[in-house]
Amino acid sequence: MLLLQRIAVSGLRNSRFDRLIVPKLYPHVCFTSDPSHLQSPKPHFSNGSTSSGHWAVAGALLGVGAVLAYGNHREKAAKDSLPVYTKAEVRRHGSLETRVWVTLGHEVFDVTDFVAIHPGGPSKLLLAAGGPLEPFWALYAAHNQPHVRELLAEYKIGELSPDEERSSDQVCTDPYASDPPRHPALQINSQKPFNAEPPLELLGESYITPNPLFFTRNHLPVPTIDPATYHLQVEGPPGGQTLSLSLDDLRRFPKHQVTVTLQCAGNRRSEMAQVKSVKGLNWGAGAISTAQWGGARLRDVLIQAGHSPSGSETHVCFEGLDYDPTGTAYGASIPLARAMDPEGDVLLAYEMNGQPLPPDHGFPVRVVVPGVVGARHVKWLGKVSISPEESPSHWQRRDYKGFCPSVDWDKVDFDSAPAIQELPVQSAITEPREGQTIEPGELTVKGYAWSGGGRAIIRVDVSLDGGLTWQEAKLEGEAQAPRRAWAWRLWQLTAPVPTDWKELNIICKAVDDGYNVQPDTVTPIWNLRGVLTNAWHRVHVQVAP
Amino acid sequence: MLLLQRIAVSGLRNSRFDRLIVPKLYPHVCFTSDPSHLQSPKPHFSNGSTSSGHWAVAGALLGVGAVLAYGNHREKAAKDSLPVYTKAEVRRHGSLETRVWVTLGHEVFDVTDFVAIHPGGPSKLLLAAGGPLEPFWALYAAHNQPHVRELLAEYKIGELSPDEERSSDQVCTDPYASDPPRHPALQINSQKPFNAEPPLELLGESYITPNPLFFTRNHLPVPTIDPATYHLQVEGPPGGQTLSLSLDDLRRFPKHQVTVTLQCAGNRRSEMAQVKSVKGLNWGAGAISTAQWGGARLRDVLIQAGHSPSGSETHVCFEGLDYDPTGTAYGASIPLARAMDPEGDVLLAYEMNGQPLPPDHGFPVRVVVPGVVGARHVKWLGKVSISPEESPSHWQRRDYKGFCPSVDWDKVDFDSAPAIQELPVQSAITEPREGQTIEPGELTVKGYAWSGGGRAIIRVDVSLDGGLTWQEAKLEGEAQAPRRAWAWRLWQLTAPVPTDWKELNIICKAVDDGYNVQPDTVTPIWNLRGVLTNAWHRVHVQVAP
Repeated sequence: MLLLQRIAVSGLRNSRFDRLIVPKLYPHVCFTSDPSHLQSPKPHFSNGSTSSGHWAVAGALLGVGAVLAYGNHREKAAKDSLPVYTKAEVRRHGSLETRVWVTLGHEVFDVTDFVAIHPGGPSKLLLAAGGPLEPFWALYAAHNQPHVRELLAEYKIGELSPDEERSSDQVCTDPYASDPPRHPALQINSQKPFNAEPPLELLGESYITPNPLFFTRNHLPVPTIDPATYHLQVEGPPGGQTLSLSLDDLRRFPKHQVTVTLQCAGNRRSEMAQVKSVKGLNWGAGAISTAQWGGARLRDVLIQAGHSPSGSETHVCFEGLDYDPTGTAYGASIPLARAMDPEGDVLLAYEMNGQPLPPDHGFPVRVVVPGVVGARHVKWLGKVSISPEESPSHWQRRDYKGFCPSVDWDKVDFDSAPAIQELPVQSAITEPREGQTIEPGELTVKGYAWSGGGRAIIRVDVSLDGGLTWQEAKLEGEAQAPRRAWAWRLWQLTAPVPTDWKELNIICKAVDDGYNVQPDTVTPIWNLRGVLTNAWHRVHVQVAP
Repeated sequence: MLLLQRIAVSGLRNSRFDRLIVPKLYPHVCFTSDPSHLQSPKPHFSNGSTSSGHWAVAGALLGVGAVLAYGNHREKAAKDSLPVYTKAEVRRHGSLETRVWVTLGHEVFDVTDFVAIHPGGPSKLLLAAGGPLEPFWALYAAHNQPHVRELLAEYKIGELSPDEERSSDQVCTDPYASDPPRHPALQINSQKPFNAEPPLELLGESYITPNPLFFTRNHLPVPTIDPATYHLQVEGPPGGQTLSLSLDDLRRFPKHQVTVTLQCAGNRRSEMAQVKSVKGLNWGAGAISTAQWGGARLRDVLIQAGHSPSGSETHVCFEGLDYDPTGTAYGASIPLARAMDPEGDVLLAYEMNGQPLPPDHGFPVRVVVPGVVGARHVKWLGKVSISPEESPSHWQRRDYKGFCPSVDWDKVDFDSAPAIQELPVQSAITEPREGQTIEPGELTVKGYAWSGGGRAIIRVDVSLDGGLTWQEAKLEGEAQAPRRAWAWRLWQLTAPVPTDWKELNIICKAVDDGYNVQPDTVTPIWNLRGVLTNAWHRVHVQVAP
């Protein structure tokens, strides 16, 4: 429990952290070393998701110990007459050099041989080395599944000393206890951390997504931040000073407002997962939303801090104030050139559709990087720095990258692929819905289309007959400035349904102003992380007799 | 013949034109009003192409009178007792308001009803209104085909007065007579104007394409320009002056060198034409090449002329010194923002791979617009101006645009689609070749991959089994600067061929750093102009027993 204590209880964190994060500690979940707990999880361990069938995938995303069915496990450890260890002995096995031991309840495991094939990445598993898994499993609740525990059991090497069984490590808290209330219409893919998307029929109705319905992709608990004491740290150039900007300081920069669509790299992952298992939340086509963001230009703030727009290989690194059990913040980076581009419109946003940011969307300040994957729009922003290298964050370097369909977890080299920044052209049908029965006569098909990098949508083609013939949809709303088309276009097509048709295979595909198109099918773009699903979107409906 | 005379003979052109264009007038082709000429074209009317089967398509591209098999023709005009007209009477029918008459030999045609469906566009046909077709047919030799003449005959309304049959309009010249000699290895798609591509097996062997093998896409005859008297006109802002820059003046700007891949919008059109007839030259996969270009930055020249980098809706218009029979120059435009972007690398190039530009590639000066379709890299550059609108050129507004597959020539609205600028991600296999028989054992597949807009190629996937499984190819050469990846990557994959395989369906597909991918198939991206073919490239080979 040591690691979780660092966040929630003790004074080990630096003073800024302690000032800003005020978790409300409710004793919702009590980890004990009671072995019966592991055999039969209590109801409060359930993930609370309305889509619990998604957890096999979700768990695989979320880090430590999500031991999916991998081959080549080490031989089963003999379960009889296992040695007994003290916690101090376990702590001495905190690295690959000393072998990696972890505990769960009163059991001790040597997971050294599993580190390299850990679906969440070796680095995430090593965070738990030498200590208990419980704090991580509390964050990444998907681990609490029978098949995960079965696989872990194969690595068991001993028991904790009974003297230490009920020690002070016991922590009674739910790190998500202070998460905000959410809109009941959201379709939840993961409760802890909270990940949810609006229903497509609502999403497609409004060019601006209402704040309560904006898709939410949290990686960690929502930090509770006091806006009165909040300060953003902006590191200056080498030898320079660090700016510490209050909310009022940020508001003194020229206010800039931009309408920007954010999309999760995992949007439509559920379609890719149907091809072959992938690691990640089982998003439908609703992990995308649009808002008008208001705030200071990152460019203005960086210049104020003494930076100049030079160095094409330089990166702007962001750290959130949401922390994992080791005290590591969520982080990401973007190229400095993008941040400094006067037409890049990168914001330190404190407003979303004219309101202060909601807690789920980064209150009080988040980054908004138009045209770029959602993962770089760091929420609850705590720190900005410039570096010759990308953010060292797991989410920058060991996640959110695309690979050849042949690359599996046993041979993936995350260094071989660039971190996703701009996203490819995308579109989806929001109406009618899959499986719906439509009236005969005339049909209206609606949807959204968007592309990364400020590339405007110039056309959406719709087919009602599975791709044999195509009609051009009508794009709604106004065209945007060239090279700065940061927001989606909603579109619709009204067309007669031939009287003898019993069913329709509706497809949409969009074209952006670089004349990029969507691929026909999802199988050839399959990747082990299930990102970048942008094949033609297909909806199958019946025609009422 | 009046129109052609303007270019080749008379003093009607402005003085700059007369100074720069020095056509060598060889009496290769004599147009007469002898009707037998139309029935049986002389050998010197042949297009000289090594791929004459391509002309049905090529002709459709190239402008006036390419009357392909369109429906809804007007009733056949009665051929008996047709009236006789003077040339002066024909000239009075020079617009849609007065009806559009043209002559060919001694025959007079009213093509008013054909203007709207002219495959080369109404504007091109209207250029000939009130006069003879011969000057245009001399330029666009593809019109000299039986089916074109048959269709034209349906519009016949009379005869020219016999008194005028052999008038001073007779011109004896080949406008292409001063075209330069070409490398014999080039595969010619059209001789006049000259359009040719290198063989793929040569193209894929060299990161830098040798100048004599660089694909050539000319729209008009190559102008002969005296470098000693050449001046580039650069219009200043409203109220400002026009710069007139000699070659030496241009060389005084800081010299900038950039390696840039140029690709024709029609590259790989032959694959799209297999789906359904399209209008354009029947390019294989070789309408793409790479060179190191040297010259002045357009940005520097524009600033010198008094322009500033403002106005996102503003365009830089280019005019070539290659003219059509009406004296209209080849033209194109790009957004001012691209021209002014310090990282856009747009050049007024006077060197190609360390040599002066060859005549076919724009001697003495051409535009190079990295990341953008070849059609905007205007050759034999004569004039640069700034405009709130795109270039009025046919090639900017009535050509080089993409459309929904359902759009046909009877309903196309060129104003509805943006002019192609950045091109989508592309790749092709250069080795082995289609239909080849390979040795069993190990196979090496080679190719190129490129994307528009400075987006780098990050991966090429290759399948040997028609797309069932994929392997990652090795990218050759060095990665390029972010957002400035103007040149292609050559790639290769060496893989064993399973011993029981008798044939291979090889496919390649590339991914750029916006994670854009190529579409699976060409049918859904079919468009009437046959541009933007970037579906997976496929090569079928046999394995030797």
